[in-house]
Amino acid sequence: MTITALPITTGRQQDALLSQRAGMVIPNGMYGHLNRATFPPSYPQFFARGEGTKLWDVDGNRYIDLMCAWGPMILGYRNPQVDAAYKAQLEQGDCLNGPGAVMVELAELLVDTVSHADWAMFSKNGTDATTTCLTIARAATGRRKVLKASHAYHGAAPWCTPSPVGVTLEDRANIVEFEFNELADAERAAAEVEGDVAAIITTPYRHDGFVDQEAADPAYARGLRAMADRLGAALVLDDVRCGFRYDVAGSWEPLGVRPDLSAFSKAIANGYPLAAITGSDSLREAAGSVFSTGSFWFAAAAMAAGMATIHELREGSGLESMRAAGQQLREGLDAQALKHGLVVHQTGPVQMPFLRFDGDPSFTTVNQWTTETITHGVYVHPWHNWFLSAAHTPDDIDDVLQVTDHAFEVVAAR
Amino acid sequence: MTITALPITTGRQQDALLSQRAGMVIPNGMYGHLNRATFPPSYPQFFARGEGTKLWDVDGNRYIDLMCAWGPMILGYRNPQVDAAYKAQLEQGDCLNGPGAVMVELAELLVDTVSHADWAMFSKNGTDATTTCLTIARAATGRRKVLKASHAYHGAAPWCTPSPVGVTLEDRANIVEFEFNELADAERAAAEVEGDVAAIITTPYRHDGFVDQEAADPAYARGLRAMADRLGAALVLDDVRCGFRYDVAGSWEPLGVRPDLSAFSKAIANGYPLAAITGSDSLREAAGSVFSTGSFWFAAAAMAAGMATIHELREGSGLESMRAAGQQLREGLDAQALKHGLVVHQTGPVQMPFLRFDGDPSFTTVNQWTTETITHGVYVHPWHNWFLSAAHTPDDIDDVLQVTDHAFEVVAAR
Repeated sequence: MTITALPITTGRQQDALLSQRAGMVIPNGMYGHLNRATFPPSYPQFFARGEGTKLWDVDGNRYIDLMCAWGPMILGYRNPQVDAAYKAQLEQGDCLNGPGAVMVELAELLVDTVSHADWAMFSKNGTDATTTCLTIARAATGRRKVLKASHAYHGAAPWCTPSPVGVTLEDRANIVEFEFNELADAERAAAEVEGDVAAIITTPYRHDGFVDQEAADPAYARGLRAMADRLGAALVLDDVRCGFRYDVAGSWEPLGVRPDLSAFSKAIANGYPLAAITGSDSLREAAGSVFSTGSFWFAAAAMAAGMATIHELREGSGLESMRAAGQQLREGLDAQALKHGLVVHQTGPVQMPFLRFDGDPSFTTVNQWTTETITHGVYVHPWHNWFLSAAHTPDDIDDVLQVTDHAFEVVAAR
Repeated sequence: MTITALPITTGRQQDALLSQRAGMVIPNGMYGHLNRATFPPSYPQFFARGEGTKLWDVDGNRYIDLMCAWGPMILGYRNPQVDAAYKAQLEQGDCLNGPGAVMVELAELLVDTVSHADWAMFSKNGTDATTTCLTIARAATGRRKVLKASHAYHGAAPWCTPSPVGVTLEDRANIVEFEFNELADAERAAAEVEGDVAAIITTPYRHDGFVDQEAADPAYARGLRAMADRLGAALVLDDVRCGFRYDVAGSWEPLGVRPDLSAFSKAIANGYPLAAITGSDSLREAAGSVFSTGSFWFAAAAMAAGMATIHELREGSGLESMRAAGQQLREGLDAQALKHGLVVHQTGPVQMPFLRFDGDPSFTTVNQWTTETITHGVYVHPWHNWFLSAAHTPDDIDDVLQVTDHAFEVVAAR
C-alpha cells in the first residue's frame, strides 16, 4: 500500500482564518480541553459537521472519528432514533416554567437501569454532577473531607480542576488524595482526617491523561466500598467519562460493587447536554435537602434524547458492536506495531482505548504518529483516551487500520 | 366582569399522577428553584408545551406566561428565527470534536455588542460563568478574596448557593459580604481583607427573592468601579438574570459603568443552554491561563441560537415592546390595586417585575393572589421577579389584567 491510496487532507485554510479570528476574541484562541496548545499543530480546531462515525472539518476534510466528541457520541453523530426523540420534544417544549413528563420517565428509566439507583437528579455538566454528589454526601454526614485519587479528573470546578491557576488553597482544603488502586494509601488518607470523611470519590478505572490506563483492582473496589461503610461515608462513582460505554447498570457492576452515588454525563444523551446523579435510598433525604439548580437543568428535549439513548443501549446490540470494534482496533494496532518493529502500550477498555509508544516520555513519537493519522483522515488523540461508538463498523476499523499502518511505517522510518 | 368570563384550569390530574411518580424517583419530587415546596399548592409542576407567550401544562391548561422559563425566553417560546438558526446548525453538527465557526462569530458578535467586551468564553450554566469569572480574577491578581452583596444570587455552586446545606466553611472562606447599594459597607468589607481582594461581584440591580427590587444607585456603581481600580481587583457584573433584557450592551451601560468581566446566561440563546463570559483586555491573559471546560461547552447549535437571539434584540424592536408591555402591566396592576383598596409595591425594571403586597411578611396574601391568577391562566411567581419577553403584546397584557383584576377582588374580599 502506498500513501497515495489513502485519503489526504487538502489544507487548513478556513481553519487558519477562523483560528486567527478566534485569537482576537477568545482567550488563547480556544480554552479548556480544546486549547490548541495541547494538540499537535497538524490538528484542525473547527468542525463543520458530523454523521455517524464521520466528521468534517471547516475545510471539508473528512475524518473517521475515534474521539466521539470526547465521549458524548455513543451511538454516532446524528443518530436517527435519538434525534427524532429530541426534535419531537423540541417541537412541544424544551425549556419551560417546569419540567416535562419526560423528566419523571427518565428518572424512572435510570432507576430501572443503574443497579444502585433509587432516585435521580439532572443537570448540564459532569462537573455539576460530581460537585453535587459531594454536597449531598456532606449534607448526609455533616462532615467535610473527600478522599480522591491523585490526578483523577472529576471536572473543572475549583475543587477538582487539573490546573491550580486561579484556585485557592481553601478550594481544596477538604480534598485528601490517595493513589488509585492502592487501598492502603486510601486507608492512610482516611486516617489523616479520621471522623471527618464525607465521601470517597473514584473513577471506575484509572483513565488519567498521559499515562497508561489501569483497570480497578477488584480488591480496591471492594475495599473502598467496605471503607465507606465502616466510615459512614458515601462512595461516589464518577461515571461521567465511562458511563454507559462499559455497562449500562454502572461501570462497577461487573465487579459487583455498588456506589451510593453515581455521576453521569457525556454519553447519556448521545451529545445533547445532560448530566445525571443517581443515588441510593440512604442518600435520598440528603439529596432533597441541598440546593442545586440551573436555568436549563429541567429542559425536556435533552431528557428525551437521554431516554432514546438509554433505550437503544439497553435494547440494541450497540455495546457489543462497540466492544467488537474496539477489539478489532486493538488487535490490528498491536499487529501493525509488531510488523514495523515498534512497541506500543494499549490500555483501557477496548471501547475507550489509550495508546502510548514505548520510550516516548515527551510524546514526540505519538505526536508524529497522530500527525500522520489526522493528515490521512483518522481522528485520534495523542495523550487522552479515545472513544468508540456503537456506530463503528468493521469497515470503519479496516479503514482506520489502513491509515495507522502508514503512520506506523512513517514513525518506524524516522 | 364575573369569574365565569375568565379561563379556568380544569384540573391537575396528570400533574398529580406525575408528581406522585416523581416523588418515588426524584428527591423531594423536584429540586432547586422548582422544588414544589416553594410554590403555592395550586401551581402545576409539569408542562407539556410552549408557544410565544403561552404555556400549556400536562393537563392541557393554558397560561399566559409572565415567567419566561425563569428568564431564558426573551423572544417567546419557539421563536421562528432562533429555532430556524438552531435547527439548521443541528442538522450540520452540534457537539463535535471541536467548535464550529459559529463560536468565533458569536464571540465577535458579543465583542461588538457588549460595551466592555474584548473577548468571550462560553459554557452551559450561569454558575459556570460566575465561578469562572472569580477564577480568572484570582489568576490575574494572585489574590483570594471576593466581595459580594449579602443575599445576592450568583448561582448554585458551594461558594454561592443560597442554602448552607452540604456547604463547608472553607467553600465560603474567601467570600466577604456587604450590603447592596451601600458603598461604605463595601469599603468596610474591602478593608477587612486589605491586599487580598481579587474581585468585587455584583448584580446590576438588587433582584434578590422575597424583597423589593432596588435599582443600583449610580454612586454605588461608580464607587465599586473606582474601588476595583484602586484595589487592582476585577469588577465582575453578574448579568446572568438581567442580561439582554435591560440593555444589550450590558446592564450598567446606561449608568456609564463598565465591568472588567461579565457573566451572561439565561436569555442569551432564547432558551437553549448557553452561558458566556465577556472580558476586557486587561483580563485576557488571565482568562487564557485558567482551565475551565465542559463536554458540551463548545457545541454549535446553542451558539447559533445565541447569534439569532442577539441579532433579533439588536436589530428588532423587541426591547422596546418588552418595556411597553411591562409598563402597561405595571400601570394596570397599580390601578387595579388602588381600585380594590389594596396597597402593592411594584419594583424592578418593568420588564422584570416584582410585586409584593403591603403588610404581607409571610407572603400569605400574594400566595392567595397568585393562586387566583394561576387558576385563571396567568403564570406569575409569588416571591421571585417575573420576566417579560419581546413577544408579549398589549392584548396579552390586557388578558393578564382581566385575571389580575379578579385576583385583587378575591384578595380584597378576604
